[in-house]
Amino acid sequence: MNKHPPDQAGRQAAPRVGVIEPRSAVIIGTGLIGTSIALALRERGVSVWLQDRDPESALLAAGIGAGTQLPAGGLPSGPADVAVLAVPPAAVAPELAAAQRRGLAACYTDVASVKALPLGQARELACDLASYVPGHPLSGRERSGPAAARADLFLGRPWVICPLAENDADAISLVTGLSVACQAQPVQMSVAEHDQWVALVSHAPHVVAAAMAARLELAAPGALALAGQGLRDVTRIAGGDPGMWLQILTANAGPAGNVLRQVAADLQHAATALDRVADGDELAGKDVAELLERGTGGVSRIPGKRGGPARDFAIVQVIIPDRPGELARLFQAAGEAGINIEDVGIEHSSGLPVGVAELSVRREVAGQLRSVLAAGGWPVRR
Amino acid sequence: MNKHPPDQAGRQAAPRVGVIEPRSAVIIGTGLIGTSIALALRERGVSVWLQDRDPESALLAAGIGAGTQLPAGGLPSGPADVAVLAVPPAAVAPELAAAQRRGLAACYTDVASVKALPLGQARELACDLASYVPGHPLSGRERSGPAAARADLFLGRPWVICPLAENDADAISLVTGLSVACQAQPVQMSVAEHDQWVALVSHAPHVVAAAMAARLELAAPGALALAGQGLRDVTRIAGGDPGMWLQILTANAGPAGNVLRQVAADLQHAATALDRVADGDELAGKDVAELLERGTGGVSRIPGKRGGPARDFAIVQVIIPDRPGELARLFQAAGEAGINIEDVGIEHSSGLPVGVAELSVRREVAGQLRSVLAAGGWPVRR
Repeated sequence: MNKHPPDQAGRQAAPRVGVIEPRSAVIIGTGLIGTSIALALRERGVSVWLQDRDPESALLAAGIGAGTQLPAGGLPSGPADVAVLAVPPAAVAPELAAAQRRGLAACYTDVASVKALPLGQARELACDLASYVPGHPLSGRERSGPAAARADLFLGRPWVICPLAENDADAISLVTGLSVACQAQPVQMSVAEHDQWVALVSHAPHVVAAAMAARLELAAPGALALAGQGLRDVTRIAGGDPGMWLQILTANAGPAGNVLRQVAADLQHAATALDRVADGDELAGKDVAELLERGTGGVSRIPGKRGGPARDFAIVQVIIPDRPGELARLFQAAGEAGINIEDVGIEHSSGLPVGVAELSVRREVAGQLRSVLAAGGWPVRR
Repeated sequence: MNKHPPDQAGRQAAPRVGVIEPRSAVIIGTGLIGTSIALALRERGVSVWLQDRDPESALLAAGIGAGTQLPAGGLPSGPADVAVLAVPPAAVAPELAAAQRRGLAACYTDVASVKALPLGQARELACDLASYVPGHPLSGRERSGPAAARADLFLGRPWVICPLAENDADAISLVTGLSVACQAQPVQMSVAEHDQWVALVSHAPHVVAAAMAARLELAAPGALALAGQGLRDVTRIAGGDPGMWLQILTANAGPAGNVLRQVAADLQHAATALDRVADGDELAGKDVAELLERGTGGVSRIPGKRGGPARDFAIVQVIIPDRPGELARLFQAAGEAGINIEDVGIEHSSGLPVGVAELSVRREVAGQLRSVLAAGGWPVRR
């Protein structure tokens, strides 16, 4: 174990404990998350052993350089620094109990997207809670299997760590070191906070998107032909795997249900207000206005992609022919002028040979970009 | 008036009447929509007169080439082919009555995003319904003022036309010709269909996004730090102008309220089911599963950006340094290989010098793009 002073990279959310980077790790479960952790650790020179219920999966992970398949008789050189239980929520506690019985590692963590459920089951199974530090890396991606794994999956992303009263300090430091080795930002919170917060920012929004999308299931084709980008954005995540989301939602049923009940109440209230407006009660509109205002306030609190407020950026619109090489010319011109384009969106006009590229740049260089593009002959808007 | 055979450009939604392209037009209301129509018509050589409650606005529109300010004494050469009432929903009927009294044009249309309200008011004001054909171009953009106008605002977008039983055939043909001159796709439907359909695909989604976003207003900062792209997408449109959206929603209160009541009921049902799961009733999860399945079904019915299903496209992920010129190199390589990139998204890892570019291409060229990028030294995923 290599002890490091905490927060040496100036990260936003410094752990309130030391950071001990592990020198060896066992990954139980070589799906997307487990294999990505393994790949990240291998890049740091950590010794990694791999195990999966499905030996083929562990072999595949080993084949792409994620580590060595765990020998049947345990580790060749005694317990690893950390064992990561990268298995579904309901499997965490049984795997933890089994791993602790085998003395597999000095400390243990998991990656489940809910935390109270596996912790409660670990208590029921009388697991050693001194060495189990619950965790949840927020990878922001829904793919599966070792083949989809990436060493940079956690780069710059939050990695929630929920220290328990029972935890040894070194166990917390090692799990924090694991997250730092994966280039994530460790963030400490309680198990209850974690489950409430992911219910709010991830689990409930999924159901809200599904409920809006469900209204389209039997809609007239003519209605769908009128769909714009707004509808696509609101409903996009509802396209995710229903089976996986059912597992997540039922494992965090209490907190998710709480948020959804409040959203449902606000929508029911707005629907009633609109019905009264339709019946001629114009004053009822104020209830709708109040919800819209609260919505605007809520959106403004979401950090931008860069972790800063989105208002630091400006959008420059430019019309481009819809053919190979056109975007290259555009980016070439921006690059030559030393302007970094932070994000790009392209809006196509269906069936016609032009599109509008929306270039997101830092506000202070937007004027310069417009000048550069105008000088290059592009029709620039706004 | 120049008569054309209908649907000569092979558009998806051919009008069921003839198309007569107007040779002259009056635009009442020089905001974003009115001025954009004027600019589009000017590009086709149509004579355009401009009028606005605010003479400065009409003057500005005239200044950017949208047409000529309407003389106080009316048109120099008799009635125009068409007058477009590009004013808020509640102002359409009074402006229509005034324009018809002045004999301003052979036919009239409007651009309001709701249709039953202005039509009802036009009936109350005893407007001539033979010459008034309700319309609604779906521009897909929420900007305001003549300075934001673009001649290509309607290019390839649906333009709803709601013929009335009272309409003269030539009035319908002229309004259809107006939409074609603006390069839009005319789509015929009834006033009631229009209002129900935009409630479903635009008005209700806005309130749903607002209700989800409203839950963030008082959320702990720690919760917001866990926000990912899913939450951003679901809530994005809730950042729109609450005043403008209140007008739209109250003008289409009945249909919007209907959709919202159904969404609220589904969410309430899901919340109750999750509460029962939290209380140990695992079977209650099936109600949540059913909503998630319906949501998936709904999302799959939304046409892709190209008007075709989104599954025609594949995403190629590539890791790029976050500095000027890097995207240019990438697009250059794709362009040289003759591969058209349909859409781009960039996902930044906060505070770190790399990003992941997600390139959307037609499925059949995805493999080729991966090869081209890999050959060029880019780390390509999937």
